[in-house]
This record gives sequence, C-alpha cells and structure tokens, in this order.
Amino acid sequence: MSAQDPIEYRDACPEVRAVFDDIRRTRQVEDVNNFWKYLARDPTTLKRTWESVNEIMSPGALDAVTKEMVYLAVSVTNGCGYCIASHSAAARKAGMSEEMFGELMAVVGMANETNRLANGYRVPIDAAFER
Amino acid sequence: MSAQDPIEYRDACPEVRAVFDDIRRTRQVEDVNNFWKYLARDPTTLKRTWESVNEIMSPGALDAVTKEMVYLAVSVTNGCGYCIASHSAAARKAGMSEEMFGELMAVVGMANETNRLANGYRVPIDAAFER
Amino acid sequence: MSAQDPIEYRDACPEVRAVFDDIRRTRQVEDVNNFWKYLARDPTTLKRTWESVNEIMSPGALDAVTKEMVYLAVSVTNGCGYCIASHSAAARKAGMSEEMFGELMAVVGMANETNRLANGYRVPIDAAFER
Amino acid sequence: MSAQDPIEYRDACPEVRAVFDDIRRTRQVEDVNNFWKYLARDPTTLKRTWESVNEIMSPGALDAVTKEMVYLAVSVTNGCGYCIASHSAAARKAGMSEEMFGELMAVVGMANETNRLANGYRVPIDAAFER
Amino acid sequence: MSAQDPIEYRDACPEVRAVFDDIRRTRQVEDVNNFWKYLARDPTTLKRTWESVNEIMSPGALDAVTKEMVYLAVSVTNGCGYCIASHSAAARKAGMSEEMFGELMAVVGMANETNRLANGYRVPIDAAFER
Amino acid sequence: MSAQDPIEYRDACPEVRAVFDDIRRTRQVEDVNNFWKYLARDPTTLKRTWESVNEIMSPGALDAVTKEMVYLAVSVTNGCGYCIASHSAAARKAGMSEEMFGELMAVVGMANETNRLANGYRVPIDAAFER
Repeated sequence: MSAQDPIEYRDACPEVRAVFDDIRRTRQVEDVNNFWKYLARDPTTLKRTWESVNEIMSPGALDAVTKEMVYLAVSVTNGCGYCIASHSAAARKAGMSEEMFGELMAVVGMANETNRLANGYRVPIDAAFER
Repeated sequence: MSAQDPIEYRDACPEVRAVFDDIRRTRQVEDVNNFWKYLARDPTTLKRTWESVNEIMSPGALDAVTKEMVYLAVSVTNGCGYCIASHSAAARKAGMSEEMFGELMAVVGMANETNRLANGYRVPIDAAFER
Repeated sequence: MSAQDPIEYRDACPEVRAVFDDIRRTRQVEDVNNFWKYLARDPTTLKRTWESVNEIMSPGALDAVTKEMVYLAVSVTNGCGYCIASHSAAARKAGMSEEMFGELMAVVGMANETNRLANGYRVPIDAAFER
Repeated sequence: MSAQDPIEYRDACPEVRAVFDDIRRTRQVEDVNNFWKYLARDPTTLKRTWESVNEIMSPGALDAVTKEMVYLAVSVTNGCGYCIASHSAAARKAGMSEEMFGELMAVVGMANETNRLANGYRVPIDAAFER
Repeated sequence: MSAQDPIEYRDACPEVRAVFDDIRRTRQVEDVNNFWKYLARDPTTLKRTWESVNEIMSPGALDAVTKEMVYLAVSVTNGCGYCIASHSAAARKAGMSEEMFGELMAVVGMANETNRLANGYRVPIDAAFER
Repeated sequence: MSAQDPIEYRDACPEVRAVFDDIRRTRQVEDVNNFWKYLARDPTTLKRTWESVNEIMSPGALDAVTKEMVYLAVSVTNGCGYCIASHSAAARKAGMSEEMFGELMAVVGMANETNRLANGYRVPIDAAFER
C-alpha cells in the first residue's frame, strides 16, 4: 500500500474510523465515498472537513436540496469532475428532479456568461447596489 | 459621448428602447441597471441576453429566490464584483433573508474548498456515481 | 519610497532602464505602463516577461489585432481588471472596432456559458474529436 | 434509458428533432455532436443555446476562424476538456493551421501568466486606460 | 445600522465577542480585520472559519511563512483583491522578503501559464505519474 | 504521424533536440515528460517555456520544494489534471513529505474558501493593507 492510496475502514486508525462511523450513521450508508477515503490520509483534515460539511449542509434557513444544488452550481463553475458527479447524485437523492436540474444548469450557464459580459464591458456598480 | 459610454434611454435607437421598455415593464422599474446600458452598445447582444435572462430567470421548477441565489453563488465563485452587487440585491428582493444569505455563503465557501481537496487528492469517481 | 512602490525611470537601475528603453522604442511610447513599473521591483521577472510578451505578441501566423483580442478574451474570462483595461486599449489601438469588440464579447460570454453546460451535463468527448 | 442519457434523433420529440435538423442543415453534418444530444434532455435550453450559438458564431465583423480561436482560448483558460476537444476541431475546420494554433496557445498562456502578475503586484489602472 | 454592515466589538453579541477575543489574543492585535467583522453577521460561520483557519495556519510540517505564501498564491490565482492585500501583509509579517515575493509571483505566473499549455495541447498524464 | 502527435527525440528537429538534451541534462532524466513532447510541436514555445521554467524553478530566495508546492497549489486551484499529477511527483522528489502534502492541501482548500467568503460579503480592504 502506497502513502497515496485511499484508506479503507479495515486499515484505518481509530481516529479515522470514528469519522467514517459518523458519516455512515449520519448519511445512513454502508460505506463512505472515495472523497473521504482519500482525505483519510490526513486525519486532521478528514475530521475538520467532515464536521464542517455536516454543519453546513444540514437543513436550516435553506433546505437540503437547495444546498446540494448550490454545491453543484459551484462545482460546475469550477469544472471539478469528481464533485459534479457526487453532488449531482446527492442533489437527486435530496429531491432534485430532471426539470429542476435543467433549470439549474440554465442559470449556472447564464451567470457564467453575464459575469464575463459585466467584466468585459467594465460595468460600474449602480449607486443603488452600493452600500 | 464616446463609443464606450453607456446608452441612456433618451439617446437610444428604437431597437434598444424596445428592450429597455420590456425590462422596465417586466421588472416594474423606472430605469434599467448599468449592465443593460453598457450592453446597449451592441443591440444584438442586448436583445439576446435580455431574452435569455428573462426566459431562464422566470419561476418554473425552481422559484425566483432559488434562481437568484444560484446566480449569486456562481458570481461569488467567479469573483465578479458587479454581479455580486446586483444579484445580492436581486436575491434579497426575491426573498433571501440574512440567515439564508449566511447559509448560502457557507455552502459556496465549502464547495470551493472541497472542489480543491478532490482535485489535489486526485480522487477517482465512485462507481456508484458513474453513468 | 517603500519596497512595494512602482519604479520610475529616474529611480531605476541600469538593468531596468534597459528594459524600459526597449519597451519605449518597440512600442513608440513616451513612458511605460504601470504594469512594467511594478514588475520592475523584480528586474529578472521584468526582463523575462517583457522578452516573452514581445516575442509572443509580434505578428506572425496571427496578426496583432487577433492576438490582442485573444489576450482580452482570456483577461475577461479571468476577471483581471487591470488586464481588461490595458488590453482593451491595446486591441483598439491595433484596429479592433466597436463592432468587433461587441462580437468578441458575445463569443467570450457564450464560451463561458457552454463550458459550464458541458461540465454540468457531463458530456463525453465524441469519438471524432479524440486523438 | 435513464433520464441522464443523451437523446438520439430516433428517440427525440418533435421539438428536439427540429433543432437537430437545423444544426445538421446549418453545419452540413450527418449527426449532431454529443453536446447537443445531452442538452436535448432540456428542450428549452437546447433550442435557446443553439439559436444563441448560431447567431454569435456566424461570420460578421470577426470571421469564423477568429471566433473559433477565441472560443478555444476561453475553453483552455477554463480547462473544459470537452470544449477544448470540440473547438480545436472546429477551429481547424474553419482554417486554423498548426502554426496559428501554436501562436494562439502562446498568447493564451502568456495572458494567464500576466493576469496573475497584475493581480499579485496589485497594479493600479493607468489613467490613460480609465474612462 | 443595516443588516449588511460589519459588526464592531462594541455592538457584538457574546458569541461573536468570544471569537474576536480569541483572534486578538492569538494574533496579538488590537482589533480584528474587516474580514472577521463582516463574517460576524453569521456567528456560526465566523466561529467555524476562525477555528479552521487557526488550526490550518499554525506552523506544523510547513512553517508560517510558507503557509502564508501558499495562501497568497491561491488568492492571486483567483484574483481575490481583499485576500491578496491581507495575505501579502500577513506573509511579509511572517518573514517574506521582497526577493521571496518576487520569486513567488514568478512561480505563480508560470504555473498559470503552463496549466493552460497543458490544457490546450491536451497532454496525457505520463505513466510514471499515474497511480 | 499527425500534426497533433507528440514529438519523440528520434523524430525531432535539431532545435527541439537541443532543448530536450538540456532538459535531460539539467534534470538528470532519461527522457522528457509528455508536456515537453507536446510543446515540441511549436519549437519557439518549447524553447521559451523551458528557459523560463528553468530560470524560475531554480532555487533562490525560495528553495526547490517550496517552489514545487506553490506550483502544485496553483494547479490544484485551477484544476489542471496533468499539472497536478506532474507537480505532485516533482514536489515529492524535491522533498515534500505526506505530512507536508496534507498541510499544503489544507491551506489551498481554506484559501479557496475564504477567497469566496471575502467576495460574497464584499469585504472592503482594511486601511492598514492599502498602499
């Protein structure tokens, strides 16, 4: 096993196992995703990232499907292949229909377009939007 | 007036005025934002962009405030100052509370972080996420 | 004068002056832009960057205005305010008309949009495009 | 067939077929690229995107090869694998030689470099470039 | 005071004051930066972000100046004006000399250039780099 | 052999061979990486890029491993798969331990997060950071 391999549960130290157990319990899944198995190479980052994600993605003023769609919008904008795949799945699981996906992509595409039009035309911020 | 100046209604050609009128009617505002006044330097782009934005941002499977929050999430990720200012205002007008804004920013920040962790650890896509 | 101030010709060391002189001669300008005055804080980077820019931006298989428009397209995509301002000016000087600018921005906007649609829909590369 | 599969012509609804027919006629090709088959999952986005791309990419003040090279420059900057593959092919078809490709990449690379030098040195915009 | 104003210590709730006190003590400063005063509008995000930053930026296998330079490299790549300003100052305080800054910017610029050359030439990963 | 194929030493023109020889000598390797074989399609870009990389990456005020880690941080932020693979390997060869890699990724992730928090909260630059 090389230092760059993912960590499976059976090979994990107690600190990593505790995080894996918490993920499995919280998400009610048999096994954690590759993302967590790779992060487990650095137990401190694994623990902090899981705790942050768990705190942030829990439903609050925004519901779960809205949060997952925003996550997907950011991942699509950044072109992160892994994150697009995993958060597409998570958003669908949280209730995103194909119609919602279509509208989400349309907004993401248009925002990326108008962001550049605003840059290129050097549009100054309207007084009404200034603090 | 230089060729790079924004176009005010009083100076606009009929084609631009028609778009400005449609924006004012649809959004029920007195005057259009700077974005449209700068785009008006190219009437073809002005018309196509307004028609696309209007089609995309109308409530459908996603409601107006969700769409504006996604727009804001993309603009924040890209660091477009004008778009952050204008779509913060639009999202608030559509119903985004301060609590919703706080949670939105938390998701956007975390997604930008984990996008890079997935890149850096070179995490392969789980079989379950593959088509 | 702080170490982070731009370097004016009168305060420059001989190595920096030689680069400034070459820029002024090549571009037929009285004074160099701020970009070069700031880079001059690191004479090695100043020299290498100027020589690279000069080699790359000289007309070859692509003419000067095409090269400047591509430079502007990249700067708009990245949202670099300084570079948008300076390369808009350079592209206009090299012959970019307002109509060309309008079409350039339309292409840049659309490319940024479809880049994200391709990401989000996870479109696999057509066999015809593979090597 | 899953909801995330691409839509082939034989399985397409009349609205999608009409767009596919228009693409095939306009581009004089036997079949449309994967990009359009995936977008076809959302016929509204398919139609709007095709009409926008068609309007924007038609020769005008800029010729076809210049537009394709700008599209490629943006796609390379964003790192969109699909778009790099498809617009490399399109640019070559429109007349981009290997020498033009080499110079294009050189400009794109240098622009991405100097964008960051301008950011990092916090270079203020020259008065001459300000509106 | 609007909901979008920064929070000063005198106006802060006990939870925010506790974080501000911890920042001031840890960094030995009189007052916290604007970043923290704006984040204080969402005490949960303020607390989590400060605790994460504090854990991550403490010297470990990498020393403080290296960590600050990496932070600056990322901020320059993303074009975040606030972060470039604040982490330039932090890196200098941690020991970054002008010569180190010059070399850092040179590496950041070159990496941004070659990232795009690798994208544009569609370079496949060498077998030696594959896992 | 297509014009888009990589250039192997045996097929290279003298100008390309001279660069390949210099890379092999400087890095003490049997063969150059794919990156250089693809760039070799444009000998001018190959020569300039190698000379720039060689000048920039040589140890100076920053040592080799710090420079490679900064290169990796930029590549991870941009999501360049090839560059992440090659500069992970280069950084490890220059002395980056797994613990250093873990801390590097943690800083890169956090910087990408707080860059967006600063954007989204529209944090103005502190007077202390202004020039």
